[in-house]
Amino acid sequence: MKKGKILSGMRPTGALHLGNYFGALENWVKLQNDYDCYFFVADWHALTTGYENTDDIKNNINNLVIDFLSAGLDPEKCSIFLQSSVVEHAELHLLFSMVTPLPWLTRCPTYKDQLAQMKDKNITTYGFLGYPCLQAADILIYKANFVPVGEDQLPHLELTREIARRFNFLYREVFPEPQPLLTKAKVLPGLDGRKMSKSYNNTIALSDSPEDIKKKVMTMITDPQRIKKDDPGHPDVCAVYAFHKVFNEDEVPEIEENCKGGKIGCVQCKRNLAEKMNAYMTPIYERRQDILSKPAYIKEVVMKGNENARKIARSTMEDVRNALKIDWE
Amino acid sequence: MKKGKILSGMRPTGALHLGNYFGALENWVKLQNDYDCYFFVADWHALTTGYENTDDIKNNINNLVIDFLSAGLDPEKCSIFLQSSVVEHAELHLLFSMVTPLPWLTRCPTYKDQLAQMKDKNITTYGFLGYPCLQAADILIYKANFVPVGEDQLPHLELTREIARRFNFLYREVFPEPQPLLTKAKVLPGLDGRKMSKSYNNTIALSDSPEDIKKKVMTMITDPQRIKKDDPGHPDVCAVYAFHKVFNEDEVPEIEENCKGGKIGCVQCKRNLAEKMNAYMTPIYERRQDILSKPAYIKEVVMKGNENARKIARSTMEDVRNALKIDWE
Ligand code: SF4
Ligand code: SF4
Repeated sequence: MKKGKILSGMRPTGALHLGNYFGALENWVKLQNDYDCYFFVADWHALTTGYENTDDIKNNINNLVIDFLSAGLDPEKCSIFLQSSVVEHAELHLLFSMVTPLPWLTRCPTYKDQLAQMKDKNITTYGFLGYPCLQAADILIYKANFVPVGEDQLPHLELTREIARRFNFLYREVFPEPQPLLTKAKVLPGLDGRKMSKSYNNTIALSDSPEDIKKKVMTMITDPQRIKKDDPGHPDVCAVYAFHKVFNEDEVPEIEENCKGGKIGCVQCKRNLAEKMNAYMTPIYERRQDILSKPAYIKEVVMKGNENARKIARSTMEDVRNALKIDWE
Repeated sequence: MKKGKILSGMRPTGALHLGNYFGALENWVKLQNDYDCYFFVADWHALTTGYENTDDIKNNINNLVIDFLSAGLDPEKCSIFLQSSVVEHAELHLLFSMVTPLPWLTRCPTYKDQLAQMKDKNITTYGFLGYPCLQAADILIYKANFVPVGEDQLPHLELTREIARRFNFLYREVFPEPQPLLTKAKVLPGLDGRKMSKSYNNTIALSDSPEDIKKKVMTMITDPQRIKKDDPGHPDVCAVYAFHKVFNEDEVPEIEENCKGGKIGCVQCKRNLAEKMNAYMTPIYERRQDILSKPAYIKEVVMKGNENARKIARSTMEDVRNALKIDWE
């Protein structure tokens, strides 16, 4: 017996990196064993910020599904689907738009932040303002009980819960209020110690080969004050050390001691990390090679996921139309 | 050969009155002969202002279709369909939301007007702000060439044209820019001389029986300065006279003369009007009785219209997804 229904999605905006993986996907892989999970590729959401150039979107959709599968999502255990393949999301989004007070959106803490952050993009659109409304539809159309979120996404989930409450109050009890499943994400910095981000060009992609990973690790920035091998190091400012915490937990106390005591060199420390990382990453890489060798499989997975998703979405929309009394047909 | 495709819709908010009829529907009945016409019941639009109480919506939908048919819309000549039955409108609305700059909506001249007018209603919602976006989807999904509009609706149609241009510019030429078909609507005042409006309780419904019409005409407000039959009248301030202009054009010069000269009494003048009105309205009333006697017919008409509409809507959405490069499936 599964513990409830979970829904979560990611935007197809390019190859996932390890920051994305440890921020969410790693957790999804665990959740699929205990919950009834629906994971989706949020292609419509990708348009909110990327509508001006959609040349890569089809590729990005495929790659995201490949990232999902190689990370270990198992289509026998969870449904992987494409948002735009379930048109009912758009219908529910439209109906939610009718009952969502404008200030709920304009006052949303992330809205103004994002507008400010993405000044280079032309995102003062109607759809960008309303994307929490689409998110609410994504979640509620599956009557999801839980949504895995980080702390920073709590306000969005709260908005979804408010929209559910408002709909239930105006018409009748249709939607459960989804609960947050707080994820303590492991935080990996980028190769240069800053936040891992495509725009800093400091990422390790989930799709990187063991050789790529090794090469990238060897370029990582360590404690800048360490010149010679026996200089005492400061692991807390070192990206390599942060990686050890994720990939090599057992040896962390030893590394800390050796680094602070000037007893290991950074090159050795990195070689050790690359080995441990590849012990973890190689199965992911191998799954990817396997998936890439059978291109029909990806389509098959998503088509099956779409069918599963549509079945629930259609049944919810019958409830919704019925509650709204617009079930004319 | 028809002259092009026309799309227009009405909200199902209650029995149509003669103001509504002469404002649009009378014209639709003529247009169906020369154009490829799609007329729809805008139930989703009705939610923008009426989401708080949808108890009557199903009845209103049915009654609007009955109003359409009794006015003379002929399902052999045009398609009559229900907006919410063509889910593709919601999908296109969502995609348009991504490319529609927020200021296009907030600066829309009718937006602030309506907010001010409907202070009693709670309509500062996301959906109310975006309804021109839904309207654009309604029109463009049929690649309509013409939209019958009154002067006051020109700004909305211009917004639809702007959204079409923006989409065509961002992706590729998918939508023709629909042209306005300006309707010189015949203007009928209410029974009391003010604007005909349900909220003034001064309407004649399209569904009123000949007896009802006669009774209502006899209660109409005439020139208040006329006490006795031979007092000179002022037809220009008289609602009865305004009605004669619509229903009894031929006799207008004679009535004007007789009224100004104090040569006819208002009772006689009203009897004459009631007779002329019923010569026009009785066929509409009889068609209604005929339709009401075969309830399955209404459903049949709309189901057929829905099918026609869906066929076009689906084909347009294929173009749209293809242009946006989100035709993954
Ligand atoms: S020894 Fe390891 S932890 Fe210490 S600074 Fe060098 S790479 Fe970083
Ligand atoms: S005679 Fe006719 S037009 Fe003149 S005031 Fe009376 S009702 Fe009006």
